[in-house]
Amino acid sequence: MTVVSITAMSTPVDLTHHLSTEARLRKPNPMKEIWKLTRRRPNMVSLANGDPHFSLYPIRSIEYEMASVAVKDPVASWRAGPSAPSHTMKSSAHEPCALPIQAGMQYSHGTGLPDAQRVVTELTQFYHAPADHLCTLALGNSDGITKCFRILGEPGDTFIADEFTFSSVTNVPLAQGIKWAGIKMDEGGMIPSELERTLATWDPARGRRPHVMYLIPCGQNPTGSTLSLERRKQIYAIAQRYDLIIIEDDPYYFLQYDAPSRATTSPDTPFVRSFLSLDTDGRVMRIDSFSKIMAPGMRLGWITSNATFHDALVTYTDSSTMHPHGFGQMLITEMLAQTGWGLAGFDRWVRSLRAEYHRRRAHFLALFEREVAPTGIAGAECPEAGMFVWIRVHVEKHPRYRADRRMASKDVAGPRTNVKELMEELFERCLDGGLVIMPASIFALSADPKFDDMEDPVEDRVNYLRATFAGTEEVMEQGLAILGRVLEEFFAEELKVFA
Amino acid sequence: MTVVSITAMSTPVDLTHHLSTEARLRKPNPMKEIWKLTRRRPNMVSLANGDPHFSLYPIRSIEYEMASVAVKDPVASWRAGPSAPSHTMKSSAHEPCALPIQAGMQYSHGTGLPDAQRVVTELTQFYHAPADHLCTLALGNSDGITKCFRILGEPGDTFIADEFTFSSVTNVPLAQGIKWAGIKMDEGGMIPSELERTLATWDPARGRRPHVMYLIPCGQNPTGSTLSLERRKQIYAIAQRYDLIIIEDDPYYFLQYDAPSRATTSPDTPFVRSFLSLDTDGRVMRIDSFSKIMAPGMRLGWITSNATFHDALVTYTDSSTMHPHGFGQMLITEMLAQTGWGLAGFDRWVRSLRAEYHRRRAHFLALFEREVAPTGIAGAECPEAGMFVWIRVHVEKHPRYRADRRMASKDVAGPRTNVKELMEELFERCLDGGLVIMPASIFALSADPKFDDMEDPVEDRVNYLRATFAGTEEVMEQGLAILGRVLEEFFAEELKVFA
Repeated sequence: MTVVSITAMSTPVDLTHHLSTEARLRKPNPMKEIWKLTRRRPNMVSLANGDPHFSLYPIRSIEYEMASVAVKDPVASWRAGPSAPSHTMKSSAHEPCALPIQAGMQYSHGTGLPDAQRVVTELTQFYHAPADHLCTLALGNSDGITKCFRILGEPGDTFIADEFTFSSVTNVPLAQGIKWAGIKMDEGGMIPSELERTLATWDPARGRRPHVMYLIPCGQNPTGSTLSLERRKQIYAIAQRYDLIIIEDDPYYFLQYDAPSRATTSPDTPFVRSFLSLDTDGRVMRIDSFSKIMAPGMRLGWITSNATFHDALVTYTDSSTMHPHGFGQMLITEMLAQTGWGLAGFDRWVRSLRAEYHRRRAHFLALFEREVAPTGIAGAECPEAGMFVWIRVHVEKHPRYRADRRMASKDVAGPRTNVKELMEELFERCLDGGLVIMPASIFALSADPKFDDMEDPVEDRVNYLRATFAGTEEVMEQGLAILGRVLEEFFAEELKVFA
Repeated sequence: MTVVSITAMSTPVDLTHHLSTEARLRKPNPMKEIWKLTRRRPNMVSLANGDPHFSLYPIRSIEYEMASVAVKDPVASWRAGPSAPSHTMKSSAHEPCALPIQAGMQYSHGTGLPDAQRVVTELTQFYHAPADHLCTLALGNSDGITKCFRILGEPGDTFIADEFTFSSVTNVPLAQGIKWAGIKMDEGGMIPSELERTLATWDPARGRRPHVMYLIPCGQNPTGSTLSLERRKQIYAIAQRYDLIIIEDDPYYFLQYDAPSRATTSPDTPFVRSFLSLDTDGRVMRIDSFSKIMAPGMRLGWITSNATFHDALVTYTDSSTMHPHGFGQMLITEMLAQTGWGLAGFDRWVRSLRAEYHRRRAHFLALFEREVAPTGIAGAECPEAGMFVWIRVHVEKHPRYRADRRMASKDVAGPRTNVKELMEELFERCLDGGLVIMPASIFALSADPKFDDMEDPVEDRVNYLRATFAGTEEVMEQGLAILGRVLEEFFAEELKVFA
């Protein structure tokens, strides 16, 4: 594969042709258009919108007792419990605050509240310094990605993703009539030459060549792999050549443990450069979320995109979910204000959180060495980022392992082995032993026998388990002890004799 | 029209055939399926989900200073400002509360958090006593309706609504390839015989007969009309005969001013009976929201439906927006708990809110009598419910009014009059005068000249303005003064002489 260098466009690239029929058909919400008129001149009197007056909101103030970030290692300090120093922030109707309840709890529009949009824009600017992009608030990661798929995807399309990927997301557009093509991975994530091969040899009988790619660049879910800067540049160049839109889903961005020596956007941000930071064309839609760095119940995130896609997202939001809730927008606005944590305090929190997960990772791997590795039946790579360890099960050591299935079944395209069946059995054994752990099969994108190379189908490579170190030390300890025991028992069984 | 009485079904009616291709294609989110396994037996150890541990949420507690409902007229008391008595509620990680932060801010599933689902179920039971329905939490009204349209609608479908209706909602499914057929209304809302006529004479060349109807039964948006119990029964019987699903969008349910003598679900709930309370078949999907009774920024509501549609909504939610934010769910759970307002306190709040809007309605109508009625150019009906007054402009009095347009243009199907153009001009005059008010045209569902009776097209009947009394007294006073003045000036103009 020829590596093409990234071309900075002197004029913005027009990517309007990527918009779906649905996005083109959708008209702006007429109510929101009228609402904008109320801002046409100062002192405009409005009898237009059925907006309850703020004096009728039964909420006078909301006070958040948050972690203090004035200490050296805020997360470690916070975990001490009720006695740890805290920092109180407050959204109020009558007292001064960054985003008063009057504005925060009123209707707004699809972009989100201006104050909340400003703070996520500043945050994005600090960590990614994107060329020319806009932030649109979303109701968390899943909502953001769903909206990207809706504004880009057409029934009959095929989207691209890693061959093992987050099936919560790949499940989303199936009902829209969209299929997936998985790209082969190694320990470093998606293999750029495999991506290029898929695109270069695309058979038009399969539908139009993919124009959307979904990626989790850091601590990939489920494999834990992280794309190197070199691979990111290669993948971006391929996206330019084949006119791909990249949906960069990056919830684990702040959980990068081994990247201090990598090229970063600026010396202040010791995190590897995102696709967004490399995006000169506007072909990256980056999805950020507060779920992993604050709490999943935040259900608040944002999409950073070019202006055309931003407009389509806003129009879609105004005629579907509407803008996100005021609670989360008020909280992040207070939190990122100078009276709150501020951006510098937020940065201390996420670095401290990274240190905490770093400790958890070490703890997990030490337990794995003690409880699982001695069986000789499974091994684990150390992930550079994220929350997941991809455990390889040496399934070929199982007494009932077979690699001649294709010959026996005379099925030339199917899997060669019984790996899938054995792994299903192992999953059930784990459940019986009291352990829930993620089987690789639920993340695998099956190849299409009509078009894909079936020499090495993904079903033969599902001998992995995804385990998380997000839980407590006790959970890791108990869980890995069960896993070691179940593996040993399952692999020690006698070959059953079939009558 | 023969009025058929509502038939209570001894066995539940199977309505599965109403589900869209999209709803049938969508598989449950595989992650959520695994998540359910963690509940299969007590003490199940999970290494499965990347759920951040609650000790890492930077939020220790959230304290809400809410209105006290221990006073006689809570809303009137609350409007006094910062000195009004309040009631503090608290979601906490360490102190006892109804829904602790640990659970409230964690991932849950598409139904919503069990505690939040329970409180909205109890609330629904109290006011509507539905036969056999389930509540699904949604991210507000708009999100709830969008999800109903997605699980029911097919490209090429035509849905039914009032001929003047909330265009924020009718805009939603257009991009899905769904059209609308408007049903004629009078002061009492949708005319049942017109609904029956549309369905009975449906031309299959127009696509399949409508199977979904969108209705706002109380204080209809924009006309302010409220369907009488008699009409509701007639419409429900037609829905049974023609196998229609009714989407009952009822944000103004608690703002019913003149219904004390109406038949209600129980003597404790002096609100007119909803379609949900009449629903014996499971063909009503009721949409409730906290936007109008608390604050729009709540972005929290719920859908009450039969179990089949509930399952489809949950599956869709798990693969799109995900469950609603924890903030709102924690707040309503604390609020409806015994330590909060409780259901009785909530009922005091909404009755008091109704009294407040009742006062506002009276104020608006008095101002209208003073500022607008004397012009003789416009009149207003008193709405029984909601926030809107539908102002009829006597456009036929305008010097440039014409009723012979169709003859002149030789267009047999188009509007007969220039009402639409004159009303557009009036709208611009209002803007120039500093007033934003809603023109009827943006709520009108245009008829289809190929199939609909074009004798009396809606464009000839857009001589209305929608005004709200949700604003302050000053806004009403200023707004109606501008309206009176603009009307007078606009109607007093000399007939322009065209060269």
